[in-house]
Amino acid sequence: MKKVTLLLSLLLTPFLVSAQTVKSPNGQIIVNFSLTGNGQPTYEMTYKGRAVVKPSHLGLELAKDKHASKGLRETSLMDGFQILDTKSSTFDEIWKPVWGETATIRNHYNELEVDLNQGESKRKMIIRFRVYDDGMGFRYEFPQQDSLTYFTIKEEHSQFAMAGDHTAWWLPGDYDTQEQETQESKLSQIRSRFHDAVNWDNSSVSVFSPTGVQTSLQMKSQDGLYINIHEAACIDYATMHLNLDDKNMVFESWLTPDATGMKGYMQTPCQSPWRTVMVSDDARDMLSSNLILNLNEPCKIEDTSWIHPTKYCGVWWEMIVGKSSWHYTDDFPSIKLDQIDWNSVKPNGRHAANTQKVKQYIDFAAANGLQEVLVEGWNVGWEDWANHWKRDVFDFVTPYPDFDIKYLNEYAHSKGVKILMHHETSSSVGNYERHMENAFNLMNKYGYDAVKTGYVGDIIPRGDHHFSQSMNNHYLYNVQLAAKHHIMVNGHEATRPTGLCRTWPNLVGNESARGTEYEAFGGNKPDHTVILPFTRLQGGPMDYTPGILETQLNTWSDNTSWVRTTLVGQLALYVTMYSPLQMAADLPENYAKYRDAFQFIKDVACDWDDSKYLEAEPADYITVARKAKGTNNWFVGGKCDENGHKSTLKLDFLDKGRKYDCTIYADAKNAHYQKNPKAYTITHRIVKKGDTLKLTEAPGGGFAISLIAK
Amino acid sequence: MKKVTLLLSLLLTPFLVSAQTVKSPNGQIIVNFSLTGNGQPTYEMTYKGRAVVKPSHLGLELAKDKHASKGLRETSLMDGFQILDTKSSTFDEIWKPVWGETATIRNHYNELEVDLNQGESKRKMIIRFRVYDDGMGFRYEFPQQDSLTYFTIKEEHSQFAMAGDHTAWWLPGDYDTQEQETQESKLSQIRSRFHDAVNWDNSSVSVFSPTGVQTSLQMKSQDGLYINIHEAACIDYATMHLNLDDKNMVFESWLTPDATGMKGYMQTPCQSPWRTVMVSDDARDMLSSNLILNLNEPCKIEDTSWIHPTKYCGVWWEMIVGKSSWHYTDDFPSIKLDQIDWNSVKPNGRHAANTQKVKQYIDFAAANGLQEVLVEGWNVGWEDWANHWKRDVFDFVTPYPDFDIKYLNEYAHSKGVKILMHHETSSSVGNYERHMENAFNLMNKYGYDAVKTGYVGDIIPRGDHHFSQSMNNHYLYNVQLAAKHHIMVNGHEATRPTGLCRTWPNLVGNESARGTEYEAFGGNKPDHTVILPFTRLQGGPMDYTPGILETQLNTWSDNTSWVRTTLVGQLALYVTMYSPLQMAADLPENYAKYRDAFQFIKDVACDWDDSKYLEAEPADYITVARKAKGTNNWFVGGKCDENGHKSTLKLDFLDKGRKYDCTIYADAKNAHYQKNPKAYTITHRIVKKGDTLKLTEAPGGGFAISLIAK
Repeated sequence: MKKVTLLLSLLLTPFLVSAQTVKSPNGQIIVNFSLTGNGQPTYEMTYKGRAVVKPSHLGLELAKDKHASKGLRETSLMDGFQILDTKSSTFDEIWKPVWGETATIRNHYNELEVDLNQGESKRKMIIRFRVYDDGMGFRYEFPQQDSLTYFTIKEEHSQFAMAGDHTAWWLPGDYDTQEQETQESKLSQIRSRFHDAVNWDNSSVSVFSPTGVQTSLQMKSQDGLYINIHEAACIDYATMHLNLDDKNMVFESWLTPDATGMKGYMQTPCQSPWRTVMVSDDARDMLSSNLILNLNEPCKIEDTSWIHPTKYCGVWWEMIVGKSSWHYTDDFPSIKLDQIDWNSVKPNGRHAANTQKVKQYIDFAAANGLQEVLVEGWNVGWEDWANHWKRDVFDFVTPYPDFDIKYLNEYAHSKGVKILMHHETSSSVGNYERHMENAFNLMNKYGYDAVKTGYVGDIIPRGDHHFSQSMNNHYLYNVQLAAKHHIMVNGHEATRPTGLCRTWPNLVGNESARGTEYEAFGGNKPDHTVILPFTRLQGGPMDYTPGILETQLNTWSDNTSWVRTTLVGQLALYVTMYSPLQMAADLPENYAKYRDAFQFIKDVACDWDDSKYLEAEPADYITVARKAKGTNNWFVGGKCDENGHKSTLKLDFLDKGRKYDCTIYADAKNAHYQKNPKAYTITHRIVKKGDTLKLTEAPGGGFAISLIAK
Repeated sequence: MKKVTLLLSLLLTPFLVSAQTVKSPNGQIIVNFSLTGNGQPTYEMTYKGRAVVKPSHLGLELAKDKHASKGLRETSLMDGFQILDTKSSTFDEIWKPVWGETATIRNHYNELEVDLNQGESKRKMIIRFRVYDDGMGFRYEFPQQDSLTYFTIKEEHSQFAMAGDHTAWWLPGDYDTQEQETQESKLSQIRSRFHDAVNWDNSSVSVFSPTGVQTSLQMKSQDGLYINIHEAACIDYATMHLNLDDKNMVFESWLTPDATGMKGYMQTPCQSPWRTVMVSDDARDMLSSNLILNLNEPCKIEDTSWIHPTKYCGVWWEMIVGKSSWHYTDDFPSIKLDQIDWNSVKPNGRHAANTQKVKQYIDFAAANGLQEVLVEGWNVGWEDWANHWKRDVFDFVTPYPDFDIKYLNEYAHSKGVKILMHHETSSSVGNYERHMENAFNLMNKYGYDAVKTGYVGDIIPRGDHHFSQSMNNHYLYNVQLAAKHHIMVNGHEATRPTGLCRTWPNLVGNESARGTEYEAFGGNKPDHTVILPFTRLQGGPMDYTPGILETQLNTWSDNTSWVRTTLVGQLALYVTMYSPLQMAADLPENYAKYRDAFQFIKDVACDWDDSKYLEAEPADYITVARKAKGTNNWFVGGKCDENGHKSTLKLDFLDKGRKYDCTIYADAKNAHYQKNPKAYTITHRIVKKGDTLKLTEAPGGGFAISLIAK
């Protein structure tokens, strides 16, 4: 972490008062804290004088501790508090992320620390608020103290009282999956729409309340305020959901339990994650905000030279579509890893991760400037990996006999390419932890520097959930151990991110939402990718795996699904869906059919010195211009929903006096995500600062522009 | 494993019948198998024509599989069976254990295999009986088949219908502790005595039924049959309890659940452990039986040269008694391993595992022929290790600053002694697995070859139980990984053993019952050690840690407990409580007070060429003579309950024509475990085969004899 400037002033309040106020640096956001008559912590939040969060309670309900001897520990941390002290301070710093949307990030906030004492129990708790120009965060802190050492959280009761029946873009709250379609409705309609919003076919559905939703939750008020609730720095704590009291429009935190039903095991000193509320009357501020990253700790990896943004292709889409298989043989109803002689079993003839095919992918990557090649299905165990709650499902080190791991890595390296490792765990987490270090040692031996992990299915240890405290601990353990081995991590099905990539930038991506694969499972809605940047992407980049140019899958497979964007819409995603990890997900032979369009995927950067959100409206459209890292080149992406969109793009962001080779990838006039998805135009011109481009995005379409400085 | 002789004859039955009989080689035990009218498997067992197990059902109840598509998997494996085939065979083999009570063991049984088909579901199941002269075992086998690949066991329903209201020596059935006092009562009295039998103070009590008991369950019928129910080869399966229908005196299996309440996750091909019923009209046969070992697989470790029976002392009893501490500092209400600079904290001055003290123990061991020195409390984390359900509790590699691990191991080795490693896990199993290989690497680095493990407290992953399938898998994982590192394992609080030490003889011991430590926690009952060989020791040796010669703890500490045996009774345990791992558990300074008695502990062997049980009655007395491995020397031990015992010991087992130096350690005339425990006599004489010794054991006393061939 390179710290650039640090301005810190600490203003100690000399006296105690029962109500405290903290404002954002620009004064537009005001947060008030007070105690109710019975000593319950309460806060409220306004933006430009308009209520964002109405008076809302804060506190935690604790479980009875069977080892407690004095009865003290049974008291919840809900009320009975007095204010011991308050402290206000200002922080202003500019820091440089290892990779990101911008070269530098300003972390500028006013802070209020409220030191509370719970009289009867003598326990101390701190509530800390940080207020930014684009929102605020608060968290609970539990100092080390004799009267509070270990405690168990039954539930956190942090309220967020909304000021109206906002429009919300929500996912059903679920302890195990985040891969639903986003729903758009009024808050009051969540209950009636809840059942149909659940993807009951998913292998691990664990919904808990008919008004439970996930974060990041993007909302819009009737008077045009954009409000987003999420969390930051979720470490050693369960992932938070929100449960709505839909009579009063009050959200309350609802943590993910473990197998015992409990929600957190705490040892002081410790703290909760930050609970965040972003707000603006301009939707673009939701996308450009760095509030979540800023509320995370600085980078803890000293040498980050081995971490690099990456474009990659991979042996993946053909299995997703169903044309080839991850597994090697069809001959056994089930397998036991220690009882199979893989060299003697009969191959099924459809195993994709074979030496010859992987070699072709390596050649394709090398020829097109892609740095890595993901190979799924390289290792034994895929015959019965899913939906059996099987413990010893993979060993992460034994290749199938037709995957020559030594030769392929050497071949890749000779071409300047790396193979991207794959660790599907089948959610057998104990098994993965037993093998993890060996697996990383194997990666080091063969020169892999990145791994895609997967957590499909129900968790083992059985009864646990994907988003519990223990699982969040596991995901971080994985990232930290990977860092020790100089390995980057791309975690699929893991908990939705909360900005931890600032602290551990080797966490280069997560899936943690409905990705491109669902285009082969019946399709994503056309507005899906103009919602995700407002929601899922708040916490960190998503490995969305765009670039499916052959949008009709039945042209090359038996799969009757089709992609719910135009071909150009797929190109736009490389700019609108920020990630340091970008896949060219389609097959090399499909890219060969659209070489001119594929040129954009070859050209587009995946690390940036600057990003300017030019247009944005949740579920409607997003337009963003980004300046490629260390260059004067810009790339612009526009993506819209099923209604199409017209953009007037002012090239104000270009350097004055410089000319740019501009290539515009646009939907053709009659393009349409369903009826005519692959109709596109590619035009070239020379542009300069101040020029204006008029662009029309087809229904489900978009545009992509490269601006190469001359 | 050295296979000596193998005689095998396979007799295929050429036709199917609905009832099948299999007899023991001597014909005295008969087991009948049949199907009831609705196709439910049923068996019964007799001994010399007397009913041991009356007709009893067999079967398994399966859980509904949420991934089942055809509904087939919901059917339980309880009834609807037909007999497809039956096979009878005879097996007779003599094998040599790596260590044991005898140099060779005969494995001689008649076998009946019943191949069953469940018509509706088309599923196949095998029930296999093996009938020995001293009892029988049966198990369920589930062959690989398309109609049964994965299944979940809700409960196993194996019945054991008793023929009367037997006297039983029982422990309350419990998912997490085995450290209760054994109860002696009629079966019909279990219910009324159950509540008082539970040690509610134990940190992890999980009882489940007022008539639930543990195995090995020793019983005696009114007409003098000794009957024992236990299990053998419990691998990848939950530990079995027995639940009594006390109207009909029918026991039924009751497995240990995991956090979800389910009791087994199975993948074919697989099998249950063996369910064993031992029977004899001579109590000594209960002790000399090798049925449990014989039902386990042969040794899977190729090179066993590094496995050795061991006498050891250790830094342990002084902490148990409360005079010194495992932990290093008293200064923190709780600790986090990664946040403490151990060199800067204030020592509490009571930390026992310090370099100076350990050096003294090493000197003591070297001077007295003890091969190893256990050191507990050597590693950081003991400040708040217990009863907090703390995850990151130990790292197993970082010594406290006052324990010089390099120097002490080098010093020990220079004296011909090894230090015995200690891994207390605090039941944070996931944490132990994360560190296990590193911990073994550290042991290899410094030359440790044995580890004592511990599982005090509630299990993490939370909600799981000590005796569940997943925990049994963990214990075996630990033993197998240790074997890879040439490390012997002595597992405390782990599941009671089921003979796995035959297959993995580096599992040299377990605690898994109430050990000597309870003599410092209020005391064990005087009959405790004349019950354990009938119950706990059936499955494998116990690290009982005898040898507390200073029976009154308050002579050197503030502990007011006192040992419920005489001093000589402690010596007897080295012979009566068979284990290849024997601790001299008292302090060196206490042994200095009783040098003449301590001589027996120095002399006694812990590996044997032969063992002869001369007298036995559960909860009353045990007398056994053992021939020390590779010598002509014998050691005899007698132990009795609170009523005393008189033995007339015929020295028939000695070599004809050879003379022996005989040293007799006996209770003095007025000795008594409570009133006068340390009154003993030591007499010497020369004896030969055919001589008779008359010995009187005091209440709570015993005797110990060494017979050194001249």
